[in-house]
Amino acid sequence: MAQEARPAGREFFATRTVAETLAGFRPGRRTPAETVPLAEAWHRVPAGPVTTPHALPGFARSTVDGYAVRAADTYGVSEGLPGYLEVTGAVRMGAEPGVTVGPGTVASMPTGGVLPPGADAVVMVEYTQEAIPGTIEVVRPVAPGDGVVRADEDAAAGAELVPAGRPLRAQDLGMLAAAGVTGVTVAARPRVTILSTGDEVVPPGTAVLRPGQVRDASAAALAAMVTEAGGEPTLGGIVPDDPAALESAVRAALGASDLVVISAGSSVGIRDETAGVVGRLGPPGIWCHGLAIRPGKPTLLADCGGVPVIGLPGNPRSALVVFRLLGIPLVRLVGGCTSPPAEPAVRARLGRDLASATGRLDVVQVRVRRGIATPIFGLSALLSVLTAADGYLIVPEDATGLDAGTDVEVTLYR
Amino acid sequence: MAQEARPAGREFFATRTVAETLAGFRPGRRTPAETVPLAEAWHRVPAGPVTTPHALPGFARSTVDGYAVRAADTYGVSEGLPGYLEVTGAVRMGAEPGVTVGPGTVASMPTGGVLPPGADAVVMVEYTQEAIPGTIEVVRPVAPGDGVVRADEDAAAGAELVPAGRPLRAQDLGMLAAAGVTGVTVAARPRVTILSTGDEVVPPGTAVLRPGQVRDASAAALAAMVTEAGGEPTLGGIVPDDPAALESAVRAALGASDLVVISAGSSVGIRDETAGVVGRLGPPGIWCHGLAIRPGKPTLLADCGGVPVIGLPGNPRSALVVFRLLGIPLVRLVGGCTSPPAEPAVRARLGRDLASATGRLDVVQVRVRRGIATPIFGLSALLSVLTAADGYLIVPEDATGLDAGTDVEVTLYR
Repeated sequence: MAQEARPAGREFFATRTVAETLAGFRPGRRTPAETVPLAEAWHRVPAGPVTTPHALPGFARSTVDGYAVRAADTYGVSEGLPGYLEVTGAVRMGAEPGVTVGPGTVASMPTGGVLPPGADAVVMVEYTQEAIPGTIEVVRPVAPGDGVVRADEDAAAGAELVPAGRPLRAQDLGMLAAAGVTGVTVAARPRVTILSTGDEVVPPGTAVLRPGQVRDASAAALAAMVTEAGGEPTLGGIVPDDPAALESAVRAALGASDLVVISAGSSVGIRDETAGVVGRLGPPGIWCHGLAIRPGKPTLLADCGGVPVIGLPGNPRSALVVFRLLGIPLVRLVGGCTSPPAEPAVRARLGRDLASATGRLDVVQVRVRRGIATPIFGLSALLSVLTAADGYLIVPEDATGLDAGTDVEVTLYR
Repeated sequence: MAQEARPAGREFFATRTVAETLAGFRPGRRTPAETVPLAEAWHRVPAGPVTTPHALPGFARSTVDGYAVRAADTYGVSEGLPGYLEVTGAVRMGAEPGVTVGPGTVASMPTGGVLPPGADAVVMVEYTQEAIPGTIEVVRPVAPGDGVVRADEDAAAGAELVPAGRPLRAQDLGMLAAAGVTGVTVAARPRVTILSTGDEVVPPGTAVLRPGQVRDASAAALAAMVTEAGGEPTLGGIVPDDPAALESAVRAALGASDLVVISAGSSVGIRDETAGVVGRLGPPGIWCHGLAIRPGKPTLLADCGGVPVIGLPGNPRSALVVFRLLGIPLVRLVGGCTSPPAEPAVRARLGRDLASATGRLDVVQVRVRRGIATPIFGLSALLSVLTAADGYLIVPEDATGLDAGTDVEVTLYR
């Protein structure tokens, strides 16, 4: 009995730091490009830079309501000594001007109208007054270019509108629409298969649990993080604690995925078979088995023919912490996202002392109230530590701890 | 001609500050509740708190690989003076223990196994050694509760798992899954209709523009922001500059929407008809026409029978700035989101002086490089100012400007 329960050893054979892993673990898989309509392009990642075929706005445009003039005709005018100019036409929105501005004449202009030939500025209606019908007084001078946006001022022909690798923001979509770009070539969303393992794990829909059973909490949370990272999660179901079943499930997942997550598959205990299975699925194979992080030490990372495989610890809390720190960047890597969006964060004062071992990165869940970050302690097995948290702070590898009152940066959950 | 082009006046009849508007403009519309499966619940807003029907994990569970013991049997043991205990059984994952721990006996335990009757702690396998087959040496004492998570330690029966009004985070979904909650009652996504107006505006798909025409840039960007805020955008198309057409379009939109956005519909110029039209659609009607903000002054806000109506400035840049500051909070309000997620932000040093008028909130687009926030200047008509920006900073109403070197908070786009 004791023999059966006793693991061969508690040592991980290839422990790495988080920093090493983020910098060095870069499997080669990249999703292919696909073209999506603008309406579905928000937060998608352009596969290449997008340029405008023509200048924007494309014509010299009034930025004010007023009169198109030759600026020289307004030089020296003032409230006391207005200039008098003849109104020879009116520009309508969305149409050719149909009028030319010559010396001593103006054309009335709506904001956004086309600057007529001959004019080089627009004087605001506020600085004019109708003297006699068909003639205006101008009481302020304008310089050439005043009240006008140049034909190529928003973008020159051929200019880059959005860069490759940065998720499209709202204003980027506006710019693409302005240039007539209605489809964007983006990296396909990474297909991420999440395999749950464990004889005790049952689907969340299981109404009544038998003694010792737990519902699969991690898969739902991991799927949400995959979505957050721009990927497309597939729940691969629950695999029993059996090496053959696991190997066949991982092989099938590898064939259909850009990244594979094995939930609860990496603790070095009697149930652990993941390292052996994944080790057979290279090359190049296992990057680390054991990560210098708390919680989350029993993490396995492997590169199986370019596809990243992440074996997460069995404790849901540890699994979610590791996936946020390493899994989300890997989903982005595979999906071509080279400029990930910033995370919300806040600076706060640490509410109490935190101990930490050097050489290990600690992820501490905190509540933040009135500028004070209060650590939430509790077992790695407790998901409630994460649901009670507003965010987390990191005690880096080289620190032995943090004193109460230290100014810390808290990354906030969203 | 001049008479036709001349507006009746440049005065806005009801100017408000941004702070006043955020605090005071709260139309009554709220979306109904609906139930969605867990797989679609990420970032959805719970319509009420969700509680767990039973305690979690539901049974006392080992947190380590080792042996279930009576803690008292380990008191006083040490490396030099180990205790000897008989292994009378093994607990299997996901099953009833099938063994009772009595005085002087232990049962082998996997991490996550059910603590057997009689035991009150689990001693880690690292602190044991097989003495003779069926008997272990224990070299460290444990206290009751060591190596065990209590049956209700993650959540007591009836405890709140997630609060109402806060968008569901990844870990919240994990907690709901753990409790067997597979469907969540959430506020329906606000239906937001975006109407574009302007005789010069043509759809983004227009390949060749006639002189004076511009493609509808704002609608695509506004739709993305609606999605970001948790709403469901509908592009209502381009309405010509005609009061009757606008009124009929707005009336139709009100009937099918929880919020209506009129893009380019609020400049006080010759084309402006929005205020008149919207004024007829109350009660209670117009909240403000004119906002103490730059860019974005010609903003119109109205409450039409509980449905917020936002008339945005014609310049796309102004429109997007105003919608980010006021439209996104309104979408969230209508959608029951009372705890909106934090925005990513960074502190930086201002790269140059910024002038500002008191009584007006200035939104300044900036690039952030190496801790320096450099303002991007340019006309309100230029969308490129927004696409070049990493984020924006706010010069509040009571400031007359900011000096170069000032420590500022930049809200980052994502």
